[in-house]
Amino acid sequence: MAARQAIDGAVIRPPLPGDHDAIWSILEPVIRAGETLAVPRDLGREDALALWLSPERTVRLLEEDGAVLGIFYIRANQPGGGAHVANAGYVTASHARGRGVARRMCVASLDLAREHGYLAMQFNFVISTNQRAVALWQGMGFTIVGRLPQVFVHPNEGLVDALVMHRFL
Amino acid sequence: MAARQAIDGAVIRPPLPGDHDAIWSILEPVIRAGETLAVPRDLGREDALALWLSPERTVRLLEEDGAVLGIFYIRANQPGGGAHVANAGYVTASHARGRGVARRMCVASLDLAREHGYLAMQFNFVISTNQRAVALWQGMGFTIVGRLPQVFVHPNEGLVDALVMHRFL
Repeated sequence: MAARQAIDGAVIRPPLPGDHDAIWSILEPVIRAGETLAVPRDLGREDALALWLSPERTVRLLEEDGAVLGIFYIRANQPGGGAHVANAGYVTASHARGRGVARRMCVASLDLAREHGYLAMQFNFVISTNQRAVALWQGMGFTIVGRLPQVFVHPNEGLVDALVMHRFL
Repeated sequence: MAARQAIDGAVIRPPLPGDHDAIWSILEPVIRAGETLAVPRDLGREDALALWLSPERTVRLLEEDGAVLGIFYIRANQPGGGAHVANAGYVTASHARGRGVARRMCVASLDLAREHGYLAMQFNFVISTNQRAVALWQGMGFTIVGRLPQVFVHPNEGLVDALVMHRFL
């Protein structure tokens, strides 16, 4: 994928309270579109921020020249006997699409997960119509380990499958 | 599976505050064993009750002659575009094993899920070594739609797979 503009100068950092506007501006259009995330399409700002910044998540931003290009989290996918497997999620700012932001965040999330001692990473609910994401995760070493039939109501395509994707770290 | 004693007279009912001792007596040995549920093996009573009786779950007990034989819940497996698929979980009292309690609870959970308007049910994390459960769910119409490699630390068998199982309602 040709980068519109290199993001080599962008940095990964934890979010600060002053980032809430930037985070919400990234999340809102993706939540409202309802095509890739399993959250209520009418989710409000405070609920979305509470979800994304909840204590069990470790959150990072990708920032370039003071602008936030994307946000991601890692967390334990299951408690107890499943806590050695990380889960992660990524949202790219609409103004930064096509620049390799998701790839950069995925690399950073894999590094972060290794630092935290996780042995693998699993995505539980990759919407099958989100082909660009599926291809990207496959290119990042993830394999499809499950296909959940008709588990997501896509606003345009109706009931579609979701994929479970996994890779060891 | 031959029933040790028929449970035809047992009833399904919602839990009451007075049931907390009975619920904990069912959950504690299963949590401590750490073989089938992905929760911390040292989870305390109040945290376990808070988890099991959390507002997003619809919980039912199977009761016979004033004794609780098992507990189960249903809930939406995902919010938003995934909210038409139910998730469910079941725990049988150790003193009631081998009597078809899990099967009876599963039938009741499928009925309850249909009443609530769900279109399907999905189990996210069936430990592969729990062969009795896997066979039971298959007999109840569930199919294996995903196999998660080495995602669970079994206390005796080490890293084992978990299964994702699904059926339409």
